[in-house]
Amino acid sequence: MNFDPLIARLRAGNTAALARAISVVENERPGFERLLAEVHHSLGRARRIGITGPPGAGKSTLVERLVAAYRQAGQRVAVVAVDPTSPFTGGALLGDRIRMESVALDDGVYIRSMGSRGSVGGLATTTREVCDLLDAANFDRILVETVGVGQSELDVAGMTDSTVLVLVPESGDGIQTLKSGVIEVADLFVVNKADRPGAEQLRRDLEVTLGLRRRAGRQADAVLWKHPVLLTVATKGDGISELIAALDRHHAWLLESGTLQERRTRRLLHRTREVVDRATRRWVWEEARADQRIAERLEDISAGRVSPYEVAAEVLGGLKQGERT
Amino acid sequence: MNFDPLIARLRAGNTAALARAISVVENERPGFERLLAEVHHSLGRARRIGITGPPGAGKSTLVERLVAAYRQAGQRVAVVAVDPTSPFTGGALLGDRIRMESVALDDGVYIRSMGSRGSVGGLATTTREVCDLLDAANFDRILVETVGVGQSELDVAGMTDSTVLVLVPESGDGIQTLKSGVIEVADLFVVNKADRPGAEQLRRDLEVTLGLRRRAGRQADAVLWKHPVLLTVATKGDGISELIAALDRHHAWLLESGTLQERRTRRLLHRTREVVDRATRRWVWEEARADQRIAERLEDISAGRVSPYEVAAEVLGGLKQGERT
Repeated sequence: MNFDPLIARLRAGNTAALARAISVVENERPGFERLLAEVHHSLGRARRIGITGPPGAGKSTLVERLVAAYRQAGQRVAVVAVDPTSPFTGGALLGDRIRMESVALDDGVYIRSMGSRGSVGGLATTTREVCDLLDAANFDRILVETVGVGQSELDVAGMTDSTVLVLVPESGDGIQTLKSGVIEVADLFVVNKADRPGAEQLRRDLEVTLGLRRRAGRQADAVLWKHPVLLTVATKGDGISELIAALDRHHAWLLESGTLQERRTRRLLHRTREVVDRATRRWVWEEARADQRIAERLEDISAGRVSPYEVAAEVLGGLKQGERT
Repeated sequence: MNFDPLIARLRAGNTAALARAISVVENERPGFERLLAEVHHSLGRARRIGITGPPGAGKSTLVERLVAAYRQAGQRVAVVAVDPTSPFTGGALLGDRIRMESVALDDGVYIRSMGSRGSVGGLATTTREVCDLLDAANFDRILVETVGVGQSELDVAGMTDSTVLVLVPESGDGIQTLKSGVIEVADLFVVNKADRPGAEQLRRDLEVTLGLRRRAGRQADAVLWKHPVLLTVATKGDGISELIAALDRHHAWLLESGTLQERRTRRLLHRTREVVDRATRRWVWEEARADQRIAERLEDISAGRVSPYEVAAEVLGGLKQGERT
């Protein structure tokens, strides 16, 4: 299939073309990698911003406010909402998304929910690829919102230029999160629902932790970038312009320090590895029909006459010889 | 390395040998697959029981009670506590485990916490392999406890003979879980903290849902196995003997109906696929040094002169030709 007309319409900001391209990539339709290869040389225009944090922190409301503010400034904004805990696309996040209908009729906004369909690794790769399509479609900002559960928070940091960690004063989430390793990958911290008791305390706790980390020199970046801790009340719109200003400062720092280029190159290295893994799996399971070889030995495996490990070694041996036959 | 002496000690129930074997497998030390292949023919003695459900449902306390009851009946019991949200082994679950010190000095009990170290898929595979070692070490029951977050609940069902879903009356967890697809893979349902308000209501809700599912014939098994919904108060030990009896009934049904053999064969098929994937990755990244090829092209990728997809295709082409050179 020739993707040139689709890419041309995508670049021109046609929403239907974008939806079609995303569907091609999400479902790994024939030629999807060619489509992504075609747009590769024109990427890098969009700023990719990750919004992560525990459930209930108000991420969706915050994202909605950011979208509105960016739109007011004339920016085109895309939102990718990732829920790795949901096996269903659009599942758990749908309720939150409905609230965004106000902006959904606006051509300068595009919203997409993505759920895991069995493979968390696969979800992260596909999300990164969807971000590429949005970048190619000339969005100025791509907001990647994720439900924070351990690995997914680290994943989102691996796919964006700036990562915002959203916390709330109540519940022990703040402290839990500080322990979880996600603090290491966040660039900006937001204490949302800051009109509730404990907000100032959480901000101080965060600043102490960040200060200690800086002094311990645990992150080279930290010498240059002083991680801000911002207070917001997303439901009222308080603190949103300060967050946008902080994101602008972070972007400027990323550019000046060379960190942007470094992060993007690291992401491309990681992406290439992912694509090799995926292409290898496709080769093994679809072209080389490893499943058939396994099916032939399944009775022996089940009876204990041969182990999965020996059969796997046979399959791999066959692959290594493959092209010779 | 010759694993025969290790395996002999493992079979004899030596705890140090078991810990050593698990460490070999967890860290994928040289020969770990040979070790697993060696024990393969003697598996199938242990009953593998999955305990899953949302955080706070009281799974750890329930597991502790089950361990005590099985011990009283003279059974050797192993517990594998899996937390896919924690990148650290023994992290979040450690607090719960400490309460089990009472049983930890008993030779007939073995407890192991497993955290994700970057890869959820890898965690599931390793957990299944650790269960094999416990089976080979002559444990009668292997309890696999997991913190329920979407995919991990489905994973645990894929590695056990019987899956117990633990819910609690308060919070909307019950309903959330019913929607999440995990109900489809559970064999037994436990409403824990049944002395709290709403327990009977949750049981009725569950029974209605299960009845509707049975009538809709959505699961062939359901025609034969009537999923029980049990009430427990794990902190007091209430309902534990009933749960053990229900697990015994489920095991008898699994045997009689041929479902046990069917499930185990399906697991072995899945395992063999996982081992092929892992062995392939090792070949690609360690033997064939795909990373080096990518590193050579990274500057071109970063400059937009070539895409990750083209470089991946080059790498794969090299692999297919590999053995010829």
